[in-house]
Amino acid sequence: MSESITLKAAAEYLQSHDNYYILIHQSPDGDAIGSGYGLCFALRLIGKKANVMCSDPIPEKYDFITSRYEPQRFTHSVTISTDLADTRLLGKALSGYSDYIELAIDHHKSNTGFADKLVLDSSASSACEVVYEILTAGNMQVSLDTAICLYTGIATDTGCFKYECTTPRCHVIASKLMEQYNLPIGRINRTLFDIKSMERLKFETKIISNMQVYLDGKCAVAAITLADLERYDVKPEDTEGVASLPMQIKGVEVGITLKEREENKFKVSMRSAEFIDVSEICAKFGGGGHTRAAGCFIEGDADQVRMKILAAIAPIMGMDLWMV
Amino acid sequence: MSESITLKAAAEYLQSHDNYYILIHQSPDGDAIGSGYGLCFALRLIGKKANVMCSDPIPEKYDFITSRYEPQRFTHSVTISTDLADTRLLGKALSGYSDYIELAIDHHKSNTGFADKLVLDSSASSACEVVYEILTAGNMQVSLDTAICLYTGIATDTGCFKYECTTPRCHVIASKLMEQYNLPIGRINRTLFDIKSMERLKFETKIISNMQVYLDGKCAVAAITLADLERYDVKPEDTEGVASLPMQIKGVEVGITLKEREENKFKVSMRSAEFIDVSEICAKFGGGGHTRAAGCFIEGDADQVRMKILAAIAPIMGMDLWMV
Repeated sequence: MSESITLKAAAEYLQSHDNYYILIHQSPDGDAIGSGYGLCFALRLIGKKANVMCSDPIPEKYDFITSRYEPQRFTHSVTISTDLADTRLLGKALSGYSDYIELAIDHHKSNTGFADKLVLDSSASSACEVVYEILTAGNMQVSLDTAICLYTGIATDTGCFKYECTTPRCHVIASKLMEQYNLPIGRINRTLFDIKSMERLKFETKIISNMQVYLDGKCAVAAITLADLERYDVKPEDTEGVASLPMQIKGVEVGITLKEREENKFKVSMRSAEFIDVSEICAKFGGGGHTRAAGCFIEGDADQVRMKILAAIAPIMGMDLWMV
Repeated sequence: MSESITLKAAAEYLQSHDNYYILIHQSPDGDAIGSGYGLCFALRLIGKKANVMCSDPIPEKYDFITSRYEPQRFTHSVTISTDLADTRLLGKALSGYSDYIELAIDHHKSNTGFADKLVLDSSASSACEVVYEILTAGNMQVSLDTAICLYTGIATDTGCFKYECTTPRCHVIASKLMEQYNLPIGRINRTLFDIKSMERLKFETKIISNMQVYLDGKCAVAAITLADLERYDVKPEDTEGVASLPMQIKGVEVGITLKEREENKFKVSMRSAEFIDVSEICAKFGGGGHTRAAGCFIEGDADQVRMKILAAIAPIMGMDLWMV
């Protein structure tokens, strides 16, 4: 298990070492990218060498972050992770670092304790919030680049301050970042949440019209097979964000999105509205996450996977499976 | 023209009078409802009599506000408006009050100065922000009911803190309201932004698949005719929020939604991304609003209305109409 350290101790650690690799999880989202790059920019600002490493390419929509970044050349010395709950999420290209992570900065209560030292704040909506608090605790400057990154992560993980996980502190940090730099939040948020290609829009309309509800209307399931991706010419990385679609239906408590990653192997994303802890359900399938947003992998065809999930959810909702 | 008064003077006015009618605009949105009811609850808390008046029924989705409200019986004495830019927006049932509004609380720079006294803060994202500042200036208590209302208006007019009009102050006010009462923001925001009936979802997929782009892809137009409403069994009040749909398309600067209100009479909603002041365009058709969100009424069939608008926008974008 990791040694838990304070925000201040983490800041001191970062200030007293050098030559960092910052690892983030595969299929990186706004919080992984924001926390990794935001920390990287902050370290470079105090004269450290630092690079961000990810097994997968950073999606194009985050160009407004990656265009501010160039990898540096240096002899690697210290390995950190941000927003990484489990080294299994590093992906193939980075799996070799699994046993050598010195410091993990995270907000997942499910963090497996893989790092030597861990700063974990599970009350934080995002890893970016934790990075912000570390920088503040260490009197480290937040540059414009870092501000854009941290805003991005907080906005991503709170659904732009929409979800229950949004705390007063999220709003206070956002106000401070915005005040300091007059951040172009309109443009950032349109990029993060609104702007879609015509193809993606049409793909979404297809997902919505194929969505099914189960368990007395409390469970909605959307399935995206490899055949669908091919038919609509959508890359797997372009399916980010579709997990929120089933939650739009009135009366739905648990929204489930099945994305086929390899033949008969589905990445399952679960969201809940108010009552069900979906991280518990996903844990039954070897996954994890947060109370209102979690994920796992399940094998089988779409029908089999759906039945496995509904069978796990029905008793939690106090229902018999025959209601499926 | 109105006499402009300070936040503190407005608070003193409210504290020294009684028996209020608070008027809000027809087709009420979250900010009209939030500011009207929020102020009403605050006035009742200091022992005043107050009712909210609207020409149209309050949409069902705002039950979480209206369920906290009962009309009071009293002899009406003072008439106030919140979020009302122009008395023409009062609608038929309230038009008789047009010349008798003593105090207007607003954030529209286009306010026509119809009231005796006016508290106008055009830098405020929402009328709810102005109401919050008045209550603060007058040391008036914000109850849970008022907090829910004011959060609703700020969230509505900022697109849940997503749009450019979101200021650091919006975030600070949200954090204070949330801190004081542990507001159920997850539930409120799902109701405001996410939850839709299956019918509405299917209606949206229809609007999206019929959307057209013009002017080199910079302009997207969605049209909803009376025949569409009938075909999809959608009430006009259930079309709130569709104005944001055309803005989703990559590359679009101006998104236009045409809603047929009477035969050959369209309510036009315009949104812009970054550059075009749509309130200026709508003003040409006798409408108004904000830089990034405005509206007007235009007569004609859908094709005629679309051409009138594109002809007005093309030169502003430095384009010839033949590009339409």
